[in-house]
Amino acid sequence: MVLLSYGGGGYEMDDFLKNFVLKNLFLEQENGLSNDAAVEDGFKNIAFSTDSFVLNPIFINGANIGKIAACGSINDVLMMGAMPKYISLALILEEGFSKEKLKIILNSFANELKQANVKLKCGDLKVLPKGKCDEIFINTTCIGDASAFTNTINPKEIKSGDKIILSGDIARHGACVMANRNNFECNIKSDAKCLINEVSQILKIGGVKCLRDATRGGIASVLNELSLACNLEFLIEEEKIIVSDEVFAFCELLGFSPYDLANEGTFVCIASANKAEELCAKLQEFNPNSRIIGEVQKNKATVILQSPYGLKSVLQSPKGELLPRIC
Amino acid sequence: MVLLSYGGGGYEMDDFLKNFVLKNLFLEQENGLSNDAAVEDGFKNIAFSTDSFVLNPIFINGANIGKIAACGSINDVLMMGAMPKYISLALILEEGFSKEKLKIILNSFANELKQANVKLKCGDLKVLPKGKCDEIFINTTCIGDASAFTNTINPKEIKSGDKIILSGDIARHGACVMANRNNFECNIKSDAKCLINEVSQILKIGGVKCLRDATRGGIASVLNELSLACNLEFLIEEEKIIVSDEVFAFCELLGFSPYDLANEGTFVCIASANKAEELCAKLQEFNPNSRIIGEVQKNKATVILQSPYGLKSVLQSPKGELLPRIC
Repeated sequence: MVLLSYGGGGYEMDDFLKNFVLKNLFLEQENGLSNDAAVEDGFKNIAFSTDSFVLNPIFINGANIGKIAACGSINDVLMMGAMPKYISLALILEEGFSKEKLKIILNSFANELKQANVKLKCGDLKVLPKGKCDEIFINTTCIGDASAFTNTINPKEIKSGDKIILSGDIARHGACVMANRNNFECNIKSDAKCLINEVSQILKIGGVKCLRDATRGGIASVLNELSLACNLEFLIEEEKIIVSDEVFAFCELLGFSPYDLANEGTFVCIASANKAEELCAKLQEFNPNSRIIGEVQKNKATVILQSPYGLKSVLQSPKGELLPRIC
Repeated sequence: MVLLSYGGGGYEMDDFLKNFVLKNLFLEQENGLSNDAAVEDGFKNIAFSTDSFVLNPIFINGANIGKIAACGSINDVLMMGAMPKYISLALILEEGFSKEKLKIILNSFANELKQANVKLKCGDLKVLPKGKCDEIFINTTCIGDASAFTNTINPKEIKSGDKIILSGDIARHGACVMANRNNFECNIKSDAKCLINEVSQILKIGGVKCLRDATRGGIASVLNELSLACNLEFLIEEEKIIVSDEVFAFCELLGFSPYDLANEGTFVCIASANKAEELCAKLQEFNPNSRIIGEVQKNKATVILQSPYGLKSVLQSPKGELLPRIC
């Protein structure tokens, strides 16, 4: 059980950090870690992203808050076309939180870092009196090497005729969190994953104008943001967007649109037309549901969904209270 | 009043970020800020520090959680002998939190950044249902240019004969938080401040072996950590440590040791003997209570307090529940 004194800055904190936290992150205490900051080799250009994670429940089918805290910030850096290198880990724990749960969360976090070859370089721990927070909140900030960054990974580079690629089927994370929160009986699994392999591969192919992971607000939010950023219409073929049967049934039943639901390992890639097929084929090696879903038009910013029968409708950014604590 | 929908990732979030958060940070929306990550000029060596702030109460005499969130991470980077350059801001807000309070907090945060010439480069916002967090928690992660970093700013560089300098009177922040939390009538003001000016000045003089701000756990914690890191005894002349009359009275009354109480703008500097006087004189320009408080000895790690009458006692790292939510 986590005690209030673990966050006090004294003897117990030192002991807890050394003998529990670092151990479960599979780290030896290094000299550098006794400092409040780390000094590391730098890069010509830095990519820099932060996220706080307040996921509820903290364990879901296919992921937990530790895995998502690692993947979330790492993916944000990848979406800039940069290679994630260093990460920070700031824990806010509720007094009385289970050490067994914390161990699983830290282990998951560390495993994602290992696979992505990202090094944990600094951290922070606060313990709050019971009832002042909810179990565990995590902030991670990831630093990446953006020196290979060519300025082509930028919404401003988007031109009419560019293709819009979606890296997989959508809405699994949002539906999974909702199902797990409400003890629905279903097997929907979060798509949470670190995207380092697929992003590295497609950046090698070239032709990538812009990448954006479709987290909070789902693809509805991301497509609208990107369309606005380049002030061009996105024409989307609705039938190309894949929603698994189970997620589709879940959304029908509860009245959600899968376009609004969060993903944690699925992204939108805008690519030049001549490379789009090759990029999509590469992405299908990672997720067979990857598709070219549409094309950038000459008209001004809006996102248009076209049904298989040719009917057109506007896909708006989601409004109102969506799902709090989705990540 | 902050609504749950402000954290949803859709239209309301976009509007709140653009028209309230950025405005009160005195920032225009730049293109880069619509991304989830920033790409910036890098440095040969990077300093990197993270902290979550859960201060309670969020407004105290002389500071608020916004000011402290800026100063805390900036100071951690300074303590590595690096120049802070970029910062992230991740807000966790409780549904219903006052926008008026948030405005003051964001303004304070932005003012500290302006004075330190540190640029806000990425951010995150989560809104939690009422009762799931307490008003506002802030995480900041600061990146600094450590290219001027000479490897002399390292506890391993500490040798016997080195002098131990304290940059000012102690325990004001901890006493202030306690007093404000319990509605004590007194005028104790937090020492919270950004240390960029004093640290820049003393690094120019040279002879600085190690810097450490005496935050949670106070100077008792910091002196013990540094003594352990170099495995050498620190002999401290107790009478050289200045505690203001008001803080002293507060500690006497409530049974606290000022050595254990947190500071937010006061630091320990270990310096080579030949530069110590000059460094201390420079620090006195910023705080007249700066003193050389002791000397590094040949014996193994321990912190010894020596009274004016020659009596010696061991200063231990604080134990037990100190003050939760001190920063």
